[in-house]
Amino acid sequence: MNDKKKKPQKLKARLPRGFVDRNAADIRAVNEMTAKIREVYERYGFDPVETPLFEYTDALGKFLPDADRPNEGVFSLQDDDEQWMSLRYDLTAPLARHVAENYNDIQLPYRTYRAGYVFRNEKPGPGRFRQFMQFDADTVGAAGVQADAEMCMMMADTMEALGIARGDYVIRVNNRKVLDGLLEAIGLGGDENALARLAVLRALDKFDKFGIDGVKLLLGPGRKDESGDFTKGAGLSDEKVGTVVNNLLFSPNESVQNGQLVYSNQRVLSYLQTNSNLNANFSQGYDELWTMAQMFSACGYAEDRIRIDVSVVRGLEYYTGPVYEAELTFDVTNEKGEKVVFGSVGGGGRYDGLVSRFMGQPVPATGFSIGVSRLMTALKNLGKLGQDEVIAPVVVCVMDRDTESLGRYQKLTQELRNSGIRAEMYQGQKKNFGDQLKYADRRNSPIAIIQGGDERAANEVQIKDLIEGKRLSGEITDNTAWREARSAQYAVAEKDMVEKVREILAAQADDRARNGQD
Amino acid sequence: MNDKKKKPQKLKARLPRGFVDRNAADIRAVNEMTAKIREVYERYGFDPVETPLFEYTDALGKFLPDADRPNEGVFSLQDDDEQWMSLRYDLTAPLARHVAENYNDIQLPYRTYRAGYVFRNEKPGPGRFRQFMQFDADTVGAAGVQADAEMCMMMADTMEALGIARGDYVIRVNNRKVLDGLLEAIGLGGDENALARLAVLRALDKFDKFGIDGVKLLLGPGRKDESGDFTKGAGLSDEKVGTVVNNLLFSPNESVQNGQLVYSNQRVLSYLQTNSNLNANFSQGYDELWTMAQMFSACGYAEDRIRIDVSVVRGLEYYTGPVYEAELTFDVTNEKGEKVVFGSVGGGGRYDGLVSRFMGQPVPATGFSIGVSRLMTALKNLGKLGQDEVIAPVVVCVMDRDTESLGRYQKLTQELRNSGIRAEMYQGQKKNFGDQLKYADRRNSPIAIIQGGDERAANEVQIKDLIEGKRLSGEITDNTAWREARSAQYAVAEKDMVEKVREILAAQADDRARNGQD
Repeated sequence: MNDKKKKPQKLKARLPRGFVDRNAADIRAVNEMTAKIREVYERYGFDPVETPLFEYTDALGKFLPDADRPNEGVFSLQDDDEQWMSLRYDLTAPLARHVAENYNDIQLPYRTYRAGYVFRNEKPGPGRFRQFMQFDADTVGAAGVQADAEMCMMMADTMEALGIARGDYVIRVNNRKVLDGLLEAIGLGGDENALARLAVLRALDKFDKFGIDGVKLLLGPGRKDESGDFTKGAGLSDEKVGTVVNNLLFSPNESVQNGQLVYSNQRVLSYLQTNSNLNANFSQGYDELWTMAQMFSACGYAEDRIRIDVSVVRGLEYYTGPVYEAELTFDVTNEKGEKVVFGSVGGGGRYDGLVSRFMGQPVPATGFSIGVSRLMTALKNLGKLGQDEVIAPVVVCVMDRDTESLGRYQKLTQELRNSGIRAEMYQGQKKNFGDQLKYADRRNSPIAIIQGGDERAANEVQIKDLIEGKRLSGEITDNTAWREARSAQYAVAEKDMVEKVREILAAQADDRARNGQD
Repeated sequence: MNDKKKKPQKLKARLPRGFVDRNAADIRAVNEMTAKIREVYERYGFDPVETPLFEYTDALGKFLPDADRPNEGVFSLQDDDEQWMSLRYDLTAPLARHVAENYNDIQLPYRTYRAGYVFRNEKPGPGRFRQFMQFDADTVGAAGVQADAEMCMMMADTMEALGIARGDYVIRVNNRKVLDGLLEAIGLGGDENALARLAVLRALDKFDKFGIDGVKLLLGPGRKDESGDFTKGAGLSDEKVGTVVNNLLFSPNESVQNGQLVYSNQRVLSYLQTNSNLNANFSQGYDELWTMAQMFSACGYAEDRIRIDVSVVRGLEYYTGPVYEAELTFDVTNEKGEKVVFGSVGGGGRYDGLVSRFMGQPVPATGFSIGVSRLMTALKNLGKLGQDEVIAPVVVCVMDRDTESLGRYQKLTQELRNSGIRAEMYQGQKKNFGDQLKYADRRNSPIAIIQGGDERAANEVQIKDLIEGKRLSGEITDNTAWREARSAQYAVAEKDMVEKVREILAAQADDRARNGQD
């Protein structure tokens, strides 16, 4: 820092694109939300476990749908022993490494959850960040789809624990085997077509974003976005595009009940059943969906909560069986001013191959992620995350700056804190009393404590009720009102300060409760 | 994953050196601890704010004492626009960037706290990790040392809030100006000696680690460690080494009170005062320490909590005034089996130049970090972090695997969960009932629910008290005892399951309370 003067150009304070700071309200909202999610996962018998943010690049693998990005969407660097390390892009691949590394010490099924930041080297855009938080739950060592069914029910319960009304969310369920079976039937079977199948799946996954026409372009010749960027298509013929779209995006999923169209898992399943002789993949996918549907109805989760929906894909490469997604179904206004369905806030699926990449034996697993910021935005939209209930600190003003006075102000502050009251001594540069009150006011402080020379001599303090003061000053119209307004300030003995502050804070809380605020 | 068979060598599941996974007990312990710390910081009037893990490398600066490491101890990579980004190595430099970037929207003084991971590209070793969590609090825009004094008191209060007894911790305070003044007096003043001063300070900072002889080597010719690695010394003459060591490491800090040697801030201050005409730096450092000492005594923080101690340095380059450190003073046994003082769990200081790197104007600031893992280890040593109080889930066994039975087991599980009881249906591969009970036992489950064909037909379940069962099975010596042991299992109607489970859990909780466990 000593060479500051020599630098002609000042250092610019800015963040890399796609990264953001988080303010107090958001941090408190996320804490409130994740505590509720954690409560559900714990109730379902999951325990926390966490992995670090770095992994060896090969251990992590590259399963992201970002083939055109640097390092396929992953942030990587070389360690001093030349090995490549990457920042995790999800919480699933690291969990697979963790299980494989500690396989002999871990008891299966291994039921765990974790919240943490993940990193994607994406092209940043509105609402698209390169660091974001996921909250995952996984069961490793569970081969049966009853484990997937449990995940879907847990997602549904989580939505309701967060205050999202039934009808405002739906868990949609599909199976990659159904998708793979269908693609096999149009000539995209076998290992040699793995990449082609992936391209088709990722095109289908864009249905929410680009609509039916966009998906058709992505399945066929490719699609140019508004900025002119071109995304290569899967290269299917028009006929095959038609088959895929008709079977998956327009499957019959509603039936008439009491004269009303209602979503019907049974109807989707019947439709799949008629085609279940297509091939073994398709047939097995159908069986698994059927079993899951039985679990849902046995436990009383009807189609208003969990739906079989063959248009669900999920973008990650590593899924091998059931895939599921939590969607919020209410409308919000997007940045273009359009009304749109809020959409997905999380999802997951079965990844039977991810742990066994490291092992000589198969290790089946299933789990899902919640996108924490997106869900928080949704809950804010619904008014389901508490207004900031934290009361700002009482501010002890600094009227005199000699060391003895400062010590005394600090002592008053400590007395408040020791009584459990949020408090701070004014630590800023402003010597003017009015400026200090302005600080307290902007900070939304409930009370200011004032002690000048006279009060100090008398062992007294002035206690100013800033909330009542603000209210009164808005109402003051004549001199009488002004004199009454003075009742927002009290002179008390130092020894009675804590008690009086408590009394004022309690009165303010009563006022808020009466006004239905906070 | 489809090319798995082609790979001759299996992928190895391992973590990069210096990174670790965290288990449930540690995660819960850290959560419990950080909640208590947060409570203290909130009471002191601080609010949360967070920055992302990446910053532009130039905005972060390189202030670490790791000049010999790749990128001077920082993990860096190039963005796709060629700009260098780094993972934050502390939470202070990013806060400085945040304040500078949002200077017009931020009201000063800006009082904030944050917990988060930081990364150091250090040579990993026992207890030295390359990712670790810090918990910081800072006041930006506060020029007076009353703000530093407040930080010291907050650290002391935090230690006590965590259950660390008075006498088991001490906050030690010094001032970089005192250190700089002394170095100026031995010919190391001026910008041209900035690096030499830093080398001396970092040598002094190793006192805890290497003792007086190690520090002397580091101040002079250099020091070879046990592994043979050589650290270059600051190159001072023997005479100057003597001056530095005598003045800083052996300052008179004790006085006789009632015939006993006690630590005396007053004595250190008197000693400094006699030398305060050394130069302006030294004198100002003394004045600031004196003012802080007045604050401590005004607020009743005696030398058993906060001590002026001129041997405190702190390793980071950016400190400009007061520096302070929280040290735990009780003995622990290190990895070599030696008894050692636990030592530092956090510290900080004034960094008046860090925000102004970006600005045309000075922005004074002070703050500190707590090393979360180290403090957690200390609290575990003291028995101050709750034994794991989370009760493991009730396990619903899977006796039959047809879809209808699975649905029924899942429904029983959901009923328990809906009543607020942690529960899981057995999701593993083992079909054998004994193996499932072994799973429940290893998981430390309190209860198993069993329903075979007969019970299902009768709408009944068997409820097995696994804790009582374990106790009884240890005591069984004859047939009579065996028959009594059967009372750890109950047959109840399905509709009474929740009630009976509740009753057993309550009885188990009573037992634990009686035995003083948990």
